[in-house]
This record gives sequence, structure tokens and C-alpha cells, in this order.
Amino acid sequence: MNKNKRLIMLPGPTNVAEDVLEAMKYSVINHRGNEFHELYDEIQELLRYVFQTENFIALLSSSGTGGVEFAVTNFITKKDKVIACSTGEFGERLFERINAIGAETIKISKDLGDTIRASDVEEVIEKNPDATVLAIVFNETSTGACVWEIKKIMELAKSKGILTIVDSVSALGGVDIPTDKLGIDVHITGSQKCLACPPGLAFVSVSNEAIKKNKEIHNNGYFDLKAYLRFHEKKETPFTPALPLLYALKIALNKIKEEGLDNVFLRHKKCAEMFYNFANKMSLETFPKEYAKSITVITLKTPPSVKSSEIVEKMRKEHNIEIAKGFGPLSEKVIRIGCMGIINEEIVNITTKALEQTILSIE
Amino acid sequence: MNKNKRLIMLPGPTNVAEDVLEAMKYSVINHRGNEFHELYDEIQELLRYVFQTENFIALLSSSGTGGVEFAVTNFITKKDKVIACSTGEFGERLFERINAIGAETIKISKDLGDTIRASDVEEVIEKNPDATVLAIVFNETSTGACVWEIKKIMELAKSKGILTIVDSVSALGGVDIPTDKLGIDVHITGSQKCLACPPGLAFVSVSNEAIKKNKEIHNNGYFDLKAYLRFHEKKETPFTPALPLLYALKIALNKIKEEGLDNVFLRHKKCAEMFYNFANKMSLETFPKEYAKSITVITLKTPPSVKSSEIVEKMRKEHNIEIAKGFGPLSEKVIRIGCMGIINEEIVNITTKALEQTILSIE
Repeated sequence: MNKNKRLIMLPGPTNVAEDVLEAMKYSVINHRGNEFHELYDEIQELLRYVFQTENFIALLSSSGTGGVEFAVTNFITKKDKVIACSTGEFGERLFERINAIGAETIKISKDLGDTIRASDVEEVIEKNPDATVLAIVFNETSTGACVWEIKKIMELAKSKGILTIVDSVSALGGVDIPTDKLGIDVHITGSQKCLACPPGLAFVSVSNEAIKKNKEIHNNGYFDLKAYLRFHEKKETPFTPALPLLYALKIALNKIKEEGLDNVFLRHKKCAEMFYNFANKMSLETFPKEYAKSITVITLKTPPSVKSSEIVEKMRKEHNIEIAKGFGPLSEKVIRIGCMGIINEEIVNITTKALEQTILSIE
Repeated sequence: MNKNKRLIMLPGPTNVAEDVLEAMKYSVINHRGNEFHELYDEIQELLRYVFQTENFIALLSSSGTGGVEFAVTNFITKKDKVIACSTGEFGERLFERINAIGAETIKISKDLGDTIRASDVEEVIEKNPDATVLAIVFNETSTGACVWEIKKIMELAKSKGILTIVDSVSALGGVDIPTDKLGIDVHITGSQKCLACPPGLAFVSVSNEAIKKNKEIHNNGYFDLKAYLRFHEKKETPFTPALPLLYALKIALNKIKEEGLDNVFLRHKKCAEMFYNFANKMSLETFPKEYAKSITVITLKTPPSVKSSEIVEKMRKEHNIEIAKGFGPLSEKVIRIGCMGIINEEIVNITTKALEQTILSIE
């Protein structure tokens, strides 16, 4: 790591490798020409590898929230009865967006720091045998709580023919969440988290079941699946894509493929363990419950009488490292550290060392 | 111009200056921190200069079509009676998007190559005194037809208290279309046309009247004006922005400001004249009617028995210049040349010389 370069330890955007940044400089090309068609094909194949899917993947020029908009507006109608899970800010946004469609929503919510368990979903499905869609955030970026029982939850939904929508924005590519094996119909992620690409792109994989369901839906806008499918045939996106970011993405995804997904997952896991061991050593409590602890977003309670913003500012000013405060009600109560993308032992060591100095200097 | 570099003469994306491309390489920063707040402020001020407005400008990470989605979903309800003008592909998209909202639409359409006149609008407004919104594409990118009577049309709408939505995606920053002076309530453009920035950003200026109207609308998604306004107070965007593109934008807009808007408009106009003089000399008919000829998108009929794709391919392969075919039904009948952004006499000369050789070699 170049000592003069800022270390980005946010829960997104993350550090981006030099050659990925460099790739954005390639001259702008015609997004309706052969060069683009090749780029599109390459990216689709690489994304399918990372998503672990054979499904179509929509390439959206938007943030992850755009991906959520795509998922909600293309696959949910007023007639649906949707089980919507919420354990924090992003679960809440997903729930509210579904509500805005006018669908009936059954909300499963948990306290901040807690997560959704398979038993919660089982109970709700039993009471609502007419539920048609289940929507859940796999890794809640605002609290660092992860739905580790996702496999069981997907099985429960699939056994009842329920369409599954999973927001894996802050986890996909860092944690093993195999789309096809788990039976995720609509799987959302963004460029600026575990994929270690700059922000501005969202990706949504869509199963054939979901495509079938979309046939009854009239959308016609920026996030219209039918337009994305139509242009996919031509190896194009329906609307002008954010070209420089696609160049960057290709390089970033190739790095993941070269390392191998299993190695990438292992590296993320080891780095998360290092962070949690450090927290333990420093007597910093982890915010999420033990069974909910995320690998990609490390959320720690600040020491008593220390504000999160103080730590965040000192980390930036004195150590040139960006970490994040809490979200909403947790704003001054927790710090959040991204453990994503090109994370490695050296980066973790630099971060924990700086954090140790920072906390000792404040307390 | 570097001879080895591809010349992008598409009606978007356009050529992007080296330092604008270079700017994307700046390290990713925290989009919730002070550095971003400064960048946001700078960009807002520069955009207001280019839009010629005092209004709020929404900074969207999306293509221009996302800007249209923002305009339609935030300011039109089922209860509205909308005059929607269409003279080509983008007018049609605007019309269809409005239809999908469920609003009553009065469509003014013209043949391809023709444009909307003030008298057309006057007639429709007289017959529909209860119309509430007028939506129009100022410069139809698919045909190269421009609404030169826009001033009169805006006056007609404003005199009846009609909310005005104008899509200036392929013209703003290249042609004088002063938002406030014309009374445009909702004004849409994109990064990759006259602003000479890479694709991936859309900008929409919103008048206070439009903000007032939005109060009755529940949106809650990626294009929710209320969220953009709320985060504007903090000098932030509600969702993770496409950071590299914002760095590029700042440089691109600064170039426009340094040159001065009037000089930029004059440069575009002179270059367009050069293209039309060349067409005349070569006996290539311009596709749009004389009173509709665009400054920023030069659309010429191909010589009899010559396909557009032949010209386009030869231009790319033999001259390293990208121009575009027609759109939809015009696909093989016209060529379209972008006269936008960092266009200058040298670039026009290189392009027309190559085009002359190409056409003579085919005929």
C-alpha cells in the first residue's frame, strides 16, 4: 500500500486497484458497436461466475438502490402478498419500496443488530400460505448483521413456490452466496462493494421464473426488464451505459476470477476474523449479535463516552484512513469498517493499528 | 487531434478531453464526507451556469433516460392531462413513459424529420384548456430535428399555467436554451452529449412550481425527488453516486465556463454550418426539414442505393471515425453525426474529408 494514498475502509465504496482505475481512461466507444458487444459478452460471463448463476444478469447504470428499484418494479404487483424482512436501513428501504407498489406486505422486522432466522420465516409462511414473494437483505450494511441462515430460508420459500428477491449489495463476491444453488430468483448487487470497482453500476440476476412473472407487468421506464432482455439479445444495454465503469468492471472481475472465488471468500473470512480478534483484544463489543456477525461490514460499538464521529475524524486526519459512523439512530454509537474487495492482511493490520492508537488517544 | 485516437462523431457519447478522462482516476472518496460536499457544491454551481438557472438540479447516476424517468414519475400523476409532443424515437419514449403513469395524454406528433411548431401547441392548448403538463423533446436525437420555436411554445404553456417538461439531452450546453428565461420547469440533460463528459450521469433542473406539485406524489424509489432534495441540504446525493464521473464532470463543466457559454454556442453553430455546407457541396440532402435542422445532431440522407451501415463501417475502418446510422425505420436511410461538446473546425474538417472520400469510394 502506498503510504500517501488514502485507505478506504468504508462499507462501500472500497479501495479500487490502480489498474481498475486506470481502465476508466480508455477512450469512449460506441455502445451500439462491435467493440461494445465483445465487452458486454465478457462482462456477462464474468458476472455469471461471480453470481454463480446461469441466469440473465441486468447491467444497470445506477447505484445498488437502482438495483432494488429494478427488482421491486419488475417482479412485484399490487396483487402480490410479499414477505419483506427488515433489520435496518436497507431492509426498511426495501420494505417501503414494496409498499409503494401497493402490494400487501407482511413485515418481519428485528431489532438493530439482530438478523432474520429461518424460524421467523417458517412461522410467517405457515400463517400466510398465499404469500407470493419473499424479499430480504442478506447483509444489512447499516448494522453489520448478516442472514447466515439464508440457505434454509430460500429452501422454505422455494418449497412453497414463493419468488425470492435477495439484496446482496454489500456481500456478493465477498461471501459465498451461490445464486442458483440457493434458488435466488432475483439477486441484486453493486459495483462498489466486494467487487472493488468504483460506484455507479448495479447488477441483478433474474431467474426464468422471475422473467415469466414479469410478463404481466407493464413498466416501460429506465428499469424495465423487458427492454434489458430485448437489448441483451444484441449484447447491448437499452440505454447509454456508464462506459468508463464497465471498463473498470471488466478488470475488477477478471482479478476475482484469477484469484478464484473460493480463495476470495477465504481471504474475506480471514480478514474479518482479524478484525473481530482485534475488537476482542481492545474490549470493543461487536454490535450485531454473535450469530449475525457480518464478514464484509465490521460494526463495533464505540467505547463508552466516545462518539463515533471523533474516531472517524481522527482516523482520517491522523492516519489517512476512511471508516464510517453508524447509520440513523446508531450514528454516534458504532463505527463501521468495510472488509471488502481487495482487503488483505496488510490492510487489516494498518487499519487496526491506527484504530488502536486512535481509541487509546481519545479514551 | 492525435491521429491514432478514434474520433467519436456520434450523437453521444462524444469525444472527451484527456484531462476529463484523467480526472476519473482520482481515488474513490467517501460520498458522505466533507470532500464530497465541496465537490457537490462546485458541480451544482457549474451546472446552474450551464442550465442558466437558479433552480435546484438533481444529480442522477443514470443515463438521460433515467432523467426522463425522474421527470415523469415526480411531476405527473394519473390526474394530469398531458400534452406530449413526439417527432421521433425519444419523443415516443417520453410519450409512452407518461402513458404508463396512467395520465390522460394528448399527443402532438409529426412525421420523422419534421418538428413541433408553436401553432401546433397553440391549437391543442386552445382545445384543451384543462391541460396541466406539456412534455417535449427539444432536440430529437433520432432525426436531427430541433424545436426552434421553443420560446413561443414555453410562453404559450406558461400563460395557461401549464407545467413544462423539456428533454434537452442532446442539446443543452451546445445550443442556447436558457432554463429560467424560457420558464422551463423540469429540464433534463445527460453528461455524454454537449457537456463532453463520459456517459453515466443525468441532470434535471426543477422549478419551485414543480417542487410544489411533487408534494402530492408518492414515489419512494431511486428517482424520488424528495430524497434528492433532502440530501441536497447536506450537499449529498441520496444514493451512492458514480464518483469517477463526477470528477470528470467537474473538469468538463469548468472548461465550458472558462470558454464562456456564448462562445460555446457560437462554436457549435459554426461547426454545424460547416457540416451543412459540406452536405450541400456533396449534394447530400439534410433529413430534417429546413426549419427543423439541428445544430448538435447533423442528420443527412444517404445517397441513393448506398446503405448507412456501409458508410459507417468504412468511416470506422478506414478513417478511425465513429458516426451513427439512423434509428429504427431510418436505420439504413440516414447517417447521423454528432456536432457536440469539444467539436471544433479541425474536427469537422477531418470528418467531412473522410466522409467525402468514403462516399466517393462507394458510389
